[in-house]
Amino acid sequence: MAVLAEERSGVAYNFAAGPTMLPEPVLLRARDELLSWHGSGMSVWEMPFTGENFRSIVASFRDNLATLLDLPKGYSILLMHGGASTQFSLLPLNLLPPGASADYAETGHWARKAIREGRRYGDIRIAATGTDSSFTRIPAMASWQLDPAAAYCHITDNETAEGSEFHWLPETGAVPLITDMTSSFLTRPLDVAQYGMVYAGAQKNIGPAGLVLVLIRNDLLGHARPETPSVLDYTVQAGNESMVNTPLTYPIYLAGLVLDWIADQGGLTAMAAAALRRSTMVYGEIDADDFYEGPVAHEDRSRVNICFRIHDRALEARFLGAADECGLANLKGHSAIGGMRASLYNAMPDTGVDALITLMRHVRRRWG
Amino acid sequence: MAVLAEERSGVAYNFAAGPTMLPEPVLLRARDELLSWHGSGMSVWEMPFTGENFRSIVASFRDNLATLLDLPKGYSILLMHGGASTQFSLLPLNLLPPGASADYAETGHWARKAIREGRRYGDIRIAATGTDSSFTRIPAMASWQLDPAAAYCHITDNETAEGSEFHWLPETGAVPLITDMTSSFLTRPLDVAQYGMVYAGAQKNIGPAGLVLVLIRNDLLGHARPETPSVLDYTVQAGNESMVNTPLTYPIYLAGLVLDWIADQGGLTAMAAAALRRSTMVYGEIDADDFYEGPVAHEDRSRVNICFRIHDRALEARFLGAADECGLANLKGHSAIGGMRASLYNAMPDTGVDALITLMRHVRRRWG
Repeated sequence: MAVLAEERSGVAYNFAAGPTMLPEPVLLRARDELLSWHGSGMSVWEMPFTGENFRSIVASFRDNLATLLDLPKGYSILLMHGGASTQFSLLPLNLLPPGASADYAETGHWARKAIREGRRYGDIRIAATGTDSSFTRIPAMASWQLDPAAAYCHITDNETAEGSEFHWLPETGAVPLITDMTSSFLTRPLDVAQYGMVYAGAQKNIGPAGLVLVLIRNDLLGHARPETPSVLDYTVQAGNESMVNTPLTYPIYLAGLVLDWIADQGGLTAMAAAALRRSTMVYGEIDADDFYEGPVAHEDRSRVNICFRIHDRALEARFLGAADECGLANLKGHSAIGGMRASLYNAMPDTGVDALITLMRHVRRRWG
Repeated sequence: MAVLAEERSGVAYNFAAGPTMLPEPVLLRARDELLSWHGSGMSVWEMPFTGENFRSIVASFRDNLATLLDLPKGYSILLMHGGASTQFSLLPLNLLPPGASADYAETGHWARKAIREGRRYGDIRIAATGTDSSFTRIPAMASWQLDPAAAYCHITDNETAEGSEFHWLPETGAVPLITDMTSSFLTRPLDVAQYGMVYAGAQKNIGPAGLVLVLIRNDLLGHARPETPSVLDYTVQAGNESMVNTPLTYPIYLAGLVLDWIADQGGLTAMAAAALRRSTMVYGEIDADDFYEGPVAHEDRSRVNICFRIHDRALEARFLGAADECGLANLKGHSAIGGMRASLYNAMPDTGVDALITLMRHVRRRWG
């Protein structure tokens, strides 16, 4: 590991919202296997997707994901192209019949993107909104107005830009709950049975940009609109084990290495404990006095994207400059929000959090 | 290189139709840079796509591609998700107004897929077909019936399954010619100005599965149907430098390494000379006597996917068994076609062709 640390000395820790840091053991294994996977004489980049080698990689990926999640029967795992943003269109194309409506919770930047794209396809109702709090709160359940006839209800589990997160689930009755878990997937145990569908772009906690995982309850299949591109039709993909066209071969392999690493660390319970430990440390520092501010309501704070400001806004540029000097990269907040944001996904070690807190204390002492 | 050959000794040469072998220098460079790109301390997998490092990678990719192709002004380069199969839907969604029709040349397995998908969106006319020759010929120009009012005319430059290739272009007048060059892109100099649009999945000659390159003449932008998913809208992608959502960061980097390698080899003129040399050697062996058969008409033969049979069909399984024993992998023909297929993309060295010919001679001597 000493050799590795040396090699990667340009950046100590990468706090980007994604794509972002991968666990070092994953990168090391990927490097070891880059030219020849398991003695096959081929890089995973070079494998035909219909061959035995790649089929075994996909099968392990599926098995390991199902095991990690304790996935109930009756769900399909789709491994799709296009990232989560493509899903904003594929959701209504696959699940919203013409003339029907769907409920969306408007909780921040990413929920709004999903709503905007959904509205290109049909009647999207805002079941709850956080606009009155400038998205510093997840709307309280009492304020929700759910439509029992909605085709589905969509939530954004974790708002990456604002730094808020659902710590409870709305009661949607028979209406299937659909969640965009791009930034929180695999950071805690998940009761998939509570959802009609879970989707997550891979570039936060799973690794490779472009790959998006979709877990869908099988009774929701079979409703795609006729204009849905065949390779983006959930039903077609489910019926062909996500091999309708050439899948994202290497990204699936790399994501599989990340699943192995999560299992080695103790699975999702361990991921949840680590996420709580990391975020509690940083929020503790934010709340220690009034030098820093955490805009999001305590009970709705994200465990993975910690947004904070300096009360004296003029110091924020200094903070970010000092962070760069220390090799703490990509701490700038989302361009729509400003301030600072520390993204603490599964791959962030506690030492990264220690380094961030050291910096926060140093800045407070020096300029506070 | 000796060390590398040892490490990859499980397979000597990979003749798969794609994904398939990458140039060794590309894999070596990817391995060297996997943990830290250019001293940045980050893997390319870990880079935020909006950051300076990744922006420089994309900018180089675009510049190098434009230089290799001598790309005329007035074209946009789109770097999209979903592979070429997604384009089969995106073409009519972006370029075929409701009520209009498009011409397609039916030249084989992949053209038929494009036609089948196109017909889900509108009136697709078969302007020319190779069905009467069981797709062993590209239909002669005299047989084409082009519609001067067509929204576009689509051809499949190289049929990967049957092993045929266009060595000339249909005269489509003012109708934009659109070509699927997935298996032949970057194997010869290309006069892009002859086309309204060129698209190519990357997993043959450019490397990473999932990435698809689209070169589109700018006057064809602006016509997407309202149901086109925003991130799959050519106009939206062109207006945002293919950064509407997180792009395929690492695959773009890897494809860039392949472009560097092509330039180092002497560019597209060198690629064309090598493709001609390789394919001429193998076709020469096929035509040497009547032990082997090359079903495709001589003047329409592909330079990159060489399909052949053994006159005594019972020997084909033996041939494939012997190939596996020698480490010549993935020589089995497409499942819809049968027989053998040697895919000789840019990364295939002449020594791979030598090994294939040695095997062909050995099989002929032993069982012929």
